[in-house]
Amino acid sequence: MTIATAQPPTTAINFTRGVPANESFPIDEVIEAADAVLESHGAAMLQYGPSLGFQPLREWLAGWQGVALDRVLTSNGSLQLIEFLCLRMLRPGDVVFTETPSYDRTLTLLRRHGAKIVGIPLEADGPDIAALEDALKSHAPKFFYTIPDFQNPAGATCSGTKRRQIADLAERHGLLIVEDAPYRLLRYRGREEPTLYELAPERTLHMSSFTKLIAPGVRTGFMIGEPKLIASLAKAAEDTYISPGYLAQGITLEWCRRGLLLPQIEHLKRLYAPRLEACLASLDTYMPDAIPTRPEGGFFVSLTLPDGVLIGADLPVPMNPVTLLVDSNPVSTEYAGGAPGLINGVLQVNFKVPDLAPGSHQIQLQVAERRSPAGVNLQTK
Amino acid sequence: MTIATAQPPTTAINFTRGVPANESFPIDEVIEAADAVLESHGAAMLQYGPSLGFQPLREWLAGWQGVALDRVLTSNGSLQLIEFLCLRMLRPGDVVFTETPSYDRTLTLLRRHGAKIVGIPLEADGPDIAALEDALKSHAPKFFYTIPDFQNPAGATCSGTKRRQIADLAERHGLLIVEDAPYRLLRYRGREEPTLYELAPERTLHMSSFTKLIAPGVRTGFMIGEPKLIASLAKAAEDTYISPGYLAQGITLEWCRRGLLLPQIEHLKRLYAPRLEACLASLDTYMPDAIPTRPEGGFFVSLTLPDGVLIGADLPVPMNPVTLLVDSNPVSTEYAGGAPGLINGVLQVNFKVPDLAPGSHQIQLQVAERRSPAGVNLQTK
Repeated sequence: MTIATAQPPTTAINFTRGVPANESFPIDEVIEAADAVLESHGAAMLQYGPSLGFQPLREWLAGWQGVALDRVLTSNGSLQLIEFLCLRMLRPGDVVFTETPSYDRTLTLLRRHGAKIVGIPLEADGPDIAALEDALKSHAPKFFYTIPDFQNPAGATCSGTKRRQIADLAERHGLLIVEDAPYRLLRYRGREEPTLYELAPERTLHMSSFTKLIAPGVRTGFMIGEPKLIASLAKAAEDTYISPGYLAQGITLEWCRRGLLLPQIEHLKRLYAPRLEACLASLDTYMPDAIPTRPEGGFFVSLTLPDGVLIGADLPVPMNPVTLLVDSNPVSTEYAGGAPGLINGVLQVNFKVPDLAPGSHQIQLQVAERRSPAGVNLQTK
Repeated sequence: MTIATAQPPTTAINFTRGVPANESFPIDEVIEAADAVLESHGAAMLQYGPSLGFQPLREWLAGWQGVALDRVLTSNGSLQLIEFLCLRMLRPGDVVFTETPSYDRTLTLLRRHGAKIVGIPLEADGPDIAALEDALKSHAPKFFYTIPDFQNPAGATCSGTKRRQIADLAERHGLLIVEDAPYRLLRYRGREEPTLYELAPERTLHMSSFTKLIAPGVRTGFMIGEPKLIASLAKAAEDTYISPGYLAQGITLEWCRRGLLLPQIEHLKRLYAPRLEACLASLDTYMPDAIPTRPEGGFFVSLTLPDGVLIGADLPVPMNPVTLLVDSNPVSTEYAGGAPGLINGVLQVNFKVPDLAPGSHQIQLQVAERRSPAGVNLQTK
């Protein structure tokens, strides 16, 4: 690989995190929805109410998801649903399975509850099933946290075959699957696979959110699952904040009721799909000896870097292929442990920024800088 | 006391909980504020941002409260601020002081974190100072949770003298005071006392909320305190939900910026003050041998009942005076332990309902029913 001589861009480009583009927010529609729903449901939206969520929104979600109402729990974003699950299910030392790598904020919550995290290596087509089976022989995890669609941070999507294998293992081992699917509806091409919830509804908690569909600011995540567990999590929610944000939930409901969700998803696909293509093209141009995942949707591409590249933010390299972070934000060092998988060392790239070329170029320069002169194989702590 | 022969009302009246009256919500103003602020700050309100809260709202709060910006933390209601405090400060077995009785939801959170709760008996003019001093001799509490103004559930307000004594004890013992003041601005008559934060700013976390001023649905509580502790709680918040509800916080900000807070407080006083008077008059008429607190504001009256009355919800009476609950909701049985104080046995009455007479009558009938025929002094578990 030729080291470029051009100047690096003068401003840093943040590639990481599942942060939607500001220009995707349907502000005018949100204003109209807020007006209308405060006129029609103002008192109910402004009062306390059940911690399960604003009832008309839950009813809408139940219809949309095709499930009974008592299977629907909402919260202020979906992350806090994981917090309630941890509160209810975990004691310090309990084992939880995650993919390796996995979403760093979930890992932080699991650690806060003292969970012993066992990582299942993530491959380009989903978790390593043999490793999952092996892990189930020596552990009885409280649940397996997985992001089957356009995974954060790796950009990998679980194949249909592996989904069926995971569902089958869940049935045989009494395993609870926590399926986090915030990016699922942002598929730019290719064929949709069934959700784990569809394959094993009694073994799966399915989670998603309006963060990537409307905006993070509505803080409206939801979970679909077994009614008794849902009720138990709702009690944890009530003890924590009494009611979730009904004002935002009412606005979200009205926006959905107006039929704006499907057109918005189409709009988002038109917005993000070319950026993904540009990202991959840019990486191919500037980093021809690195191997990117080539996702069919979502927000993330990860990159297996050439041998001998040191990780960003002065972190040592665990092994080759290695991890590098563009903005010193150690997202993809939040690995859960376990054996190295195909993308155990990744560069996480969030391609929501409109012009990837300067950033890709910056990556190239950083990679060039960080190539270990002697190919030293440092150990992580 | 004469036992009434009239029929009890056919519908139950819920006297408990700090739930504002629906008719108090400024719905039209909220609609106008939502329109304007989404036009001016839409993208910022809809995007992720610092877990400390929506920056323009924090700036407004800092100005209102007369403190530096780094002393201001917001959350989705104020209860969750207590959750973050527990997360950061408590290990199982740690001692926390509360008033006896105290707000049941705080007690639930403290128990969830394994706190050992030591109750300081609450008197009509605030905590029993001698008991607080005694307790400080044998315990090193992580903090003292107190509601100095129009306390939930007792309706008691801490005197100026006792506030200075508490501040002094906090200085001498290095005690952290958690001052929960959601009802403070709803003073219908009498003189305002200084906050504990004003008396001991380096020893106090002051908390309040817009729940009682605008509406619960905005889920906007705030905490003022020492910057390093505030930053630590903000990290716990970030790990839990990334950002609080910026959409609702932006609307709250705009409503405040428009100068609507002070007129709304005056409106609420005009709404609630006559209800408090009606509540006390009704209790005097129907329960002349019970002793109510006579608060100068807030939402709650508590009632020391005559001897020999059994507690509601089939709970045994710990001692006389005793506790009775109107709607089988065991709020005021959530005592923190400790010696019985003046209002250790209380009937909590939330006088937000417009017509208290039917409810008071119902209390009278229930009290009559539950008078122990033999004056049996049952023990609590």
